[in-house]
Amino acid sequence: MGTTLFFFIFQIIIFTSTISHGLTQDFCVADTSLPESPSGYLCKNIENVTADDFSFSFEPTNIIDPFKFGVKFGFAPQFHGVNGQGIGLARIDIAVGGTVPLHTHPRASELVLIISGTVVMGFITSDSNMLYQTTLNANDVMIVPRGLQHFQINTGKVPVTFYAILNNQNPGFQVTSSSMFGNDLSTDMVKSVTAVSTSEIKRLKKLLGGSG
Amino acid sequence: MGTTLFFFIFQIIIFTSTISHGLTQDFCVADTSLPESPSGYLCKNIENVTADDFSFSFEPTNIIDPFKFGVKFGFAPQFHGVNGQGIGLARIDIAVGGTVPLHTHPRASELVLIISGTVVMGFITSDSNMLYQTTLNANDVMIVPRGLQHFQINTGKVPVTFYAILNNQNPGFQVTSSSMFGNDLSTDMVKSVTAVSTSEIKRLKKLLGGSG
Amino acid sequence: MGTTLFFFIFQIIIFTSTISHGLTQDFCVADTSLPESPSGYLCKNIENVTADDFSFSFEPTNIIDPFKFGVKFGFAPQFHGVNGQGIGLARIDIAVGGTVPLHTHPRASELVLIISGTVVMGFITSDSNMLYQTTLNANDVMIVPRGLQHFQINTGKVPVTFYAILNNQNPGFQVTSSSMFGNDLSTDMVKSVTAVSTSEIKRLKKLLGGSG
Amino acid sequence: MGTTLFFFIFQIIIFTSTISHGLTQDFCVADTSLPESPSGYLCKNIENVTADDFSFSFEPTNIIDPFKFGVKFGFAPQFHGVNGQGIGLARIDIAVGGTVPLHTHPRASELVLIISGTVVMGFITSDSNMLYQTTLNANDVMIVPRGLQHFQINTGKVPVTFYAILNNQNPGFQVTSSSMFGNDLSTDMVKSVTAVSTSEIKRLKKLLGGSG
Amino acid sequence: MGTTLFFFIFQIIIFTSTISHGLTQDFCVADTSLPESPSGYLCKNIENVTADDFSFSFEPTNIIDPFKFGVKFGFAPQFHGVNGQGIGLARIDIAVGGTVPLHTHPRASELVLIISGTVVMGFITSDSNMLYQTTLNANDVMIVPRGLQHFQINTGKVPVTFYAILNNQNPGFQVTSSSMFGNDLSTDMVKSVTAVSTSEIKRLKKLLGGSG
Amino acid sequence: MGTTLFFFIFQIIIFTSTISHGLTQDFCVADTSLPESPSGYLCKNIENVTADDFSFSFEPTNIIDPFKFGVKFGFAPQFHGVNGQGIGLARIDIAVGGTVPLHTHPRASELVLIISGTVVMGFITSDSNMLYQTTLNANDVMIVPRGLQHFQINTGKVPVTFYAILNNQNPGFQVTSSSMFGNDLSTDMVKSVTAVSTSEIKRLKKLLGGSG
Repeated sequence: MGTTLFFFIFQIIIFTSTISHGLTQDFCVADTSLPESPSGYLCKNIENVTADDFSFSFEPTNIIDPFKFGVKFGFAPQFHGVNGQGIGLARIDIAVGGTVPLHTHPRASELVLIISGTVVMGFITSDSNMLYQTTLNANDVMIVPRGLQHFQINTGKVPVTFYAILNNQNPGFQVTSSSMFGNDLSTDMVKSVTAVSTSEIKRLKKLLGGSG
Repeated sequence: MGTTLFFFIFQIIIFTSTISHGLTQDFCVADTSLPESPSGYLCKNIENVTADDFSFSFEPTNIIDPFKFGVKFGFAPQFHGVNGQGIGLARIDIAVGGTVPLHTHPRASELVLIISGTVVMGFITSDSNMLYQTTLNANDVMIVPRGLQHFQINTGKVPVTFYAILNNQNPGFQVTSSSMFGNDLSTDMVKSVTAVSTSEIKRLKKLLGGSG
Repeated sequence: MGTTLFFFIFQIIIFTSTISHGLTQDFCVADTSLPESPSGYLCKNIENVTADDFSFSFEPTNIIDPFKFGVKFGFAPQFHGVNGQGIGLARIDIAVGGTVPLHTHPRASELVLIISGTVVMGFITSDSNMLYQTTLNANDVMIVPRGLQHFQINTGKVPVTFYAILNNQNPGFQVTSSSMFGNDLSTDMVKSVTAVSTSEIKRLKKLLGGSG
Repeated sequence: MGTTLFFFIFQIIIFTSTISHGLTQDFCVADTSLPESPSGYLCKNIENVTADDFSFSFEPTNIIDPFKFGVKFGFAPQFHGVNGQGIGLARIDIAVGGTVPLHTHPRASELVLIISGTVVMGFITSDSNMLYQTTLNANDVMIVPRGLQHFQINTGKVPVTFYAILNNQNPGFQVTSSSMFGNDLSTDMVKSVTAVSTSEIKRLKKLLGGSG
Repeated sequence: MGTTLFFFIFQIIIFTSTISHGLTQDFCVADTSLPESPSGYLCKNIENVTADDFSFSFEPTNIIDPFKFGVKFGFAPQFHGVNGQGIGLARIDIAVGGTVPLHTHPRASELVLIISGTVVMGFITSDSNMLYQTTLNANDVMIVPRGLQHFQINTGKVPVTFYAILNNQNPGFQVTSSSMFGNDLSTDMVKSVTAVSTSEIKRLKKLLGGSG
Repeated sequence: MGTTLFFFIFQIIIFTSTISHGLTQDFCVADTSLPESPSGYLCKNIENVTADDFSFSFEPTNIIDPFKFGVKFGFAPQFHGVNGQGIGLARIDIAVGGTVPLHTHPRASELVLIISGTVVMGFITSDSNMLYQTTLNANDVMIVPRGLQHFQINTGKVPVTFYAILNNQNPGFQVTSSSMFGNDLSTDMVKSVTAVSTSEIKRLKKLLGGSG
């Protein structure tokens, strides 16, 4: 019955939407029930858009092992109002002694804004593998150039909270060790493309959820 | 002679730069001493780039009348590391009873991230002049679609601090009342293009630094 | 059975679409009956596209109070052939003594091309509120940088006609006074974010259709 | 009834897509059965995406008269995985004595990579009609600036194979002589817009499939 | 000593430039005396920018044989204020019986706005060589999709004036017959890449200024 | 003396270039002796541009340990003609038993075109760490979505040659293991941001040229 109701409602939306679309496109709130386009989700019918579509709340996130950090995304799949606007953000918490492991965002530059705690963070350049590293406290910001490997380490005595803001509504988050050891790429192939030893790969596959 | 000197100076600059440039362009730290390009400042010689170029610090800002807010920019002219990265940010403080007056950013979408205090903020659509308004507290975010009029009001009992992050390294900040009353556009012309009365224009020109 | 039906229907859609869709995307004429994407309207089936989709006609527009100008848009919602092409235009007429009030286009740079009459127009920079103003006659053009406040005043003795061409298929048109006084933003809030006096706000809300 | 069926069909498509979409958009494999957007095809349901969507094979192409070249496209309509990625390619073979006739790609810059044989190729600048021409062999590359007229001639004694890679998922291929003589633009009009003589136009219309 | 001098000179440059450069980049008026960047000309020192940089005037253009049209460009090399703004325009006049010959703009979509006279114009698609053709009078507009071959013919009894506005500050203008016959590409090579006959090529090379 | 001559020549270029710049920007051949802009190198004086600037040759590359692959870049720093064109390429050779180790290109999508040999290659998605893997032979192509981790393994009995073409004139090449172990990021920090064991880090730092 719920399904039938859903279909019925959807028909109305489709039908009414032929009336209401497009005098402007100041915004394109994501309708995640429709197919995506290369430029993002298709737009929610403007008649159903409310102020709530444009705001989003962050609470403290759950800390996860083994790196002891937590993350909540506020990108287009979660925060529908940023769809089409080319910007999004995430909240990250790092427990004492924890880190955000080495990772990349494949489709964006990033500003890291520290809310509390002390962070050592750095990025590594392409081609030359140079490290640019600094220490940040509350109200400090670091820019991470588009697509480069970077990390954050809580080097203080209290938890860290920061926001990562990226110029893409869905920039991607690729944790380097998980991309290496957290899937079913075979141990032999991981060895050949990373030079990590077989035993270490097997240990890390267990730790990070990989198989094979 | 002046021409010779010019050439001589230019040679030095050119010569030193031929050594260091560009196997990669992971980043383009602004050299604000050279002419700008449409895509931003020309790049600082990579040999002189350090980790400090990529970080920036924000302290509490000075509150300014009549709106009782303060702002510190962290865009490419101030924060050289964001040059070419397509993102930048500003810290804003609002005193109790104060506001960030109605304004636009001509070249970017914006995320507003509340650090402390309570803010009522909203934006107004183009064409239809609809208002989308909401109340935000710490760890709340609002998206402001590209280029639209918007405002923030401190409706709480404590000062407000927030960050505005925009997807442009230099997005521009155009305060609506200042663009109307804060320059030498003549009173008659202001009247004809805003419908505000002559006496009110004169009062506001005094308040906001306009002449004519 | 439902699955079978689904496949059957899906085949029909696929089969018919292999004929009509997209060996090229030289153009994407707007189908305004479908949901929008962040990059514009979805494309009309190419089999139904005709030369008429690519042309558009402008007649003299209706002059509207209080500013005594008229406008006809030729953007993607009206002129379907510009969808996806990143350009659009509008015709504007200004009666003797009239103006196009201070306004912005949130998503485009603009060329103003005068067809007849004499116009004083200007734009105001962000940050510094500087005015760049000039007088234009037939066959004169002015560029308005992306997103900035600007205005046109008919300072001659005959009506003015001009075209505004913008590098966005749907650039938005935000009249500054209407965004301030032409909606339901409360009088107290308007006062706090513009510094305009209460009595003037009430007068302008009446004039420009605002409430509250 | 037709409308009801349409809604029903649409419901199925919508329903199945609500399950799978969009925690990420690392890719947007083309679903060519759905309407296109200005940014490309809508995305195939991620649950149905396989590794096969990301690879493509080229075999020797059929040589076609009168220019004696063959082409196989690997753009979004054929190679669904490049949809949204902003890149695509084609294989071209040229028989001995053959050419790729003068042509443009309206929406991309191009790299031409020679696999075998000897090619003389060149492009012609806009405005000044200057020719930049060179001779290429296996493992040589030439860049063709965005949108300019260019050609390839097999000047060797063996067939030529090359790949053309363009920074657009569907760049378009407009053969100059075919655009002039291969359609129903009337002979008189062709003459007036090309300065080619009537008899020559008639000959070329026959050769290239034009009428009128 | 040289180092000291260098620092001294460099300080002067830095000092003087801190005044004039870049608190904002609302605009980047072209300084055509400096090297260009891929995004356009470097910016004129803002202290020397005046309102005149943002306007441009068009007068009737000189009609040129053999096609009997005239053109005046208002792109970044001529109209410095459009530099970096992504838009530009040209005035075109066509004598009675004249045409704007078949041509492309390699880097832009185009709106053609008729000021006076009657024009038959059309564009030809890539891949399929389809013609979309229409007749335009004053206040009519046609969109030409990015990069496609198109033409204008004065089919009326009075001269035609129109403006071509393109979404690129320097879109390029490539006349098809001139690119074929107006340079030093050898007659044999022109023949092989166009299928035009040798005698016709020789005639057209004479007419259009080609050699070889 | 050579230096003096260089300066003298440069003066002439600067001087003459004020005359010659910019009727068009069909291309912007890199002048790597001048400062870079965010959009790429500044343009070589057009008077000095020749056809040679637009072509580039690839020979077999030197195989390097430990991964037994070789690479030659044809990006803007090496192949000046691609500057500003948004595309570039590299030739890669892999010895029998060798691999191109796991890596990313921070600023581009990539097409991999196999010239000879047999390759197993794959990419790993962000967020979900899924592997898409396939086997490629001569004339096969794979698309690697923008910014994602990927690898190539020579699984055949002969050397492999392929070209990687990317839609950026300078896309960056970041080898994952080298970014982890090939610089001076301290062993303790590497451990904390990758979960690799201390002894393995020390082994890999030796292998890949890291310190600390």
